[in-house]
Amino acid sequence: MIAAVAPADPAYEALLERRHAALGPAYKQFYQQPFVPVKGEGVWITDHHGRRYLDAYNNVPHVGHCHPEVVNAIARQAATFNSNTRYASHVVVDYAERLLATMPAPFDTAMFVCTGTEANELAWRIAMANTGADGAIVTQSAFHGNSTIIGALDTSTIPADQLEPWIATVPAPLFAGSREDAPQPPTADAYAAQYRAAVEQLAERGRRPAAYFVCPLFASDGLYPTPAGYLAPAIDEIHSAGALVIADEVQTALGRTGTHFWGFQHAGIQPDIVTMGKPMGNGIPLAVVATRRELVDGFLKHGRYFNTFGGNQVAAAAGRAVLDVLAQENLQQNALETGAYLRSGLSALMKRHAAIGDVRGTGFFAGIEIVEGDQPAPGRARAIIEDMLSRGVLVGITGSHRNLIKVRPPMVFSRENADMVVDVLDHSLAATGG
Amino acid sequence: MIAAVAPADPAYEALLERRHAALGPAYKQFYQQPFVPVKGEGVWITDHHGRRYLDAYNNVPHVGHCHPEVVNAIARQAATFNSNTRYASHVVVDYAERLLATMPAPFDTAMFVCTGTEANELAWRIAMANTGADGAIVTQSAFHGNSTIIGALDTSTIPADQLEPWIATVPAPLFAGSREDAPQPPTADAYAAQYRAAVEQLAERGRRPAAYFVCPLFASDGLYPTPAGYLAPAIDEIHSAGALVIADEVQTALGRTGTHFWGFQHAGIQPDIVTMGKPMGNGIPLAVVATRRELVDGFLKHGRYFNTFGGNQVAAAAGRAVLDVLAQENLQQNALETGAYLRSGLSALMKRHAAIGDVRGTGFFAGIEIVEGDQPAPGRARAIIEDMLSRGVLVGITGSHRNLIKVRPPMVFSRENADMVVDVLDHSLAATGG
Repeated sequence: MIAAVAPADPAYEALLERRHAALGPAYKQFYQQPFVPVKGEGVWITDHHGRRYLDAYNNVPHVGHCHPEVVNAIARQAATFNSNTRYASHVVVDYAERLLATMPAPFDTAMFVCTGTEANELAWRIAMANTGADGAIVTQSAFHGNSTIIGALDTSTIPADQLEPWIATVPAPLFAGSREDAPQPPTADAYAAQYRAAVEQLAERGRRPAAYFVCPLFASDGLYPTPAGYLAPAIDEIHSAGALVIADEVQTALGRTGTHFWGFQHAGIQPDIVTMGKPMGNGIPLAVVATRRELVDGFLKHGRYFNTFGGNQVAAAAGRAVLDVLAQENLQQNALETGAYLRSGLSALMKRHAAIGDVRGTGFFAGIEIVEGDQPAPGRARAIIEDMLSRGVLVGITGSHRNLIKVRPPMVFSRENADMVVDVLDHSLAATGG
Repeated sequence: MIAAVAPADPAYEALLERRHAALGPAYKQFYQQPFVPVKGEGVWITDHHGRRYLDAYNNVPHVGHCHPEVVNAIARQAATFNSNTRYASHVVVDYAERLLATMPAPFDTAMFVCTGTEANELAWRIAMANTGADGAIVTQSAFHGNSTIIGALDTSTIPADQLEPWIATVPAPLFAGSREDAPQPPTADAYAAQYRAAVEQLAERGRRPAAYFVCPLFASDGLYPTPAGYLAPAIDEIHSAGALVIADEVQTALGRTGTHFWGFQHAGIQPDIVTMGKPMGNGIPLAVVATRRELVDGFLKHGRYFNTFGGNQVAAAAGRAVLDVLAQENLQQNALETGAYLRSGLSALMKRHAAIGDVRGTGFFAGIEIVEGDQPAPGRARAIIEDMLSRGVLVGITGSHRNLIKVRPPMVFSRENADMVVDVLDHSLAATGG
């Protein structure tokens, strides 16, 4: 259960010291041990000592670190023209059309922003303008961004009794994956009743909900893919209350679920607004709000919108290249097949390691629950991911109990890569079993 | 006074139609006539017909469109590694150090975001956390961003009687530039009294100010550079009320004033927080909040901060290249000298054109007030910028009366370029004189 003792690394210590001096105390290191990545290629990262790591965590480099087609698109457009949406531009319109073509009706309008936070901000403004309401509903361990308003929805950090009065919460649907003796989740109707209760809670405070923000896989809550249809009655409750459903796809978009291109399709729900960011530009800030036209019209009655960097040509060129690569390399299918292979390998470890309470997920989004008996074991989970780094594999942690190891690799992940994750996790479980 | 009749341009019409279909009604064209820029180089833009335009407006391409050194930095870093600030990174730390080295004490900490809006959002959160207050003071025709909270400060669009109750406004200091019979602005103490009144207005509503957001050149209000020392008593009023001063440098940073590297230095004020964005990455989304350490410490007592794309390596590499080019090509000095030359040429036009009410500005930020008699003439100003486009020069419009022609070129603008602006403006004034 003890993290490996970090070897002395004066170059790392010096860099951290300079970083603390210039960037200040808000900036945390992902790992406790020294780690300075300097080169990325596909699923591989090389650190400042020339050591190679398998990246099974980062979703921003969606089609792989430094994918040459995306790098070339960025370099070419940066050398050609880069400006804003006040000038009509082919690459921006092309990209918007291509993106909307991946979405079902009634999504007909794409508005450009730069980050997931900005996407959720714009979605929130659209929701308030169209509903005339100002309440929000989120899940109990959610994170949707870092602005004043969207940051107030950070139920993953803010204690429930300190939330703003305009916010009500609903639980995530606790579906287990591989765990055979898992307790049965509530029925869809019983689950929906908790949404009705959230609406009523807001009503008691004299408020109506404008929007329900939801990650279609409930990733921050602990990654709970739901059976098709399960969420429909809950979503109906939101709509019955006059509120809009905002699907926050910053972790679930662009084929990651394997089964579908969009997370909301995997969940079988019909959101009113879809917000997206992280994987879209393979690292270049690019984010979009997709919705239907009437909601944009309703919003514009109350204000205007312009975003200087939103929809710049370099970002659009990067986004278009990402869509190209996804199609050319058939990466959604890869997420479906290799993701299933990965989860099956991870599930097989459960027989040998009682510390794995569950393995769940879909496509290239897998969660491994680390427990001690029936209890979440966040300290063990932390020790495992540190140990896995020392063995050359990057994974992360999520979930309301911070005990869910998150495997969310670039979409070019292979079966060999999956084998390596399973093998290294096996060793790290043994090494931290102490 | 009539804008040139736009020639038929089926390719443009088709693009606009596709754009409206995909991006929706929020997206306006800068110009009424067809204009599709497809290539940028230095101060020059080429449109889809191969016609060349002088860009005397865009400040995002700060060191010139597609500057090869910035393009190379972007391409190189995009091909090497691009990730987030949870991994220590030399290029990010280097850039933060370089940026802070351009700032006087007590600015010792740089926090990375992606846009000016995000910078002002973070500044606002820092201000609220440190002051325990939630009121804001802004000028009467300000724009600081597009989020729910920062968008509420958009006094350039929202009528005064519809502002949120937590907002109070102060007038901009109406200093004329070249106009000889201009009325005298209030004394510095009389001007400061209007800030005291804003604080009292908030107090009457049971609120204290957390922050005063100010563009050091009052650009959106109509571009009013102030004599050194003039703003000091006003700033003292803000500080006496316990509020922080947030200098929004998205239009004034990085040497644009010619006299100083930062707009707040030009204004001779000491802000608590400096927010910046537009020109930093020459088009790549890159924005920063600079402040002193104790305010970050105070903020972190109330929350955490992480920004996925903020401080990505590609943006930092672009930002570092911008600082390099500024120094190598001595561009602040160019803004000082060529900017003065430009304003002198523009002022000389006043003798021949009664429609020019004033010419003011500093460095590469010039404003030409278009009037009819003593009245602002926004329609004429609009006609002039359309006519100037048809003659191959890009300029913009700003100010509370929308009658100030804004000349805010890339920093590599030359005397020849300035001559062209003066010459074309001369012709456009004649052509629109009706």
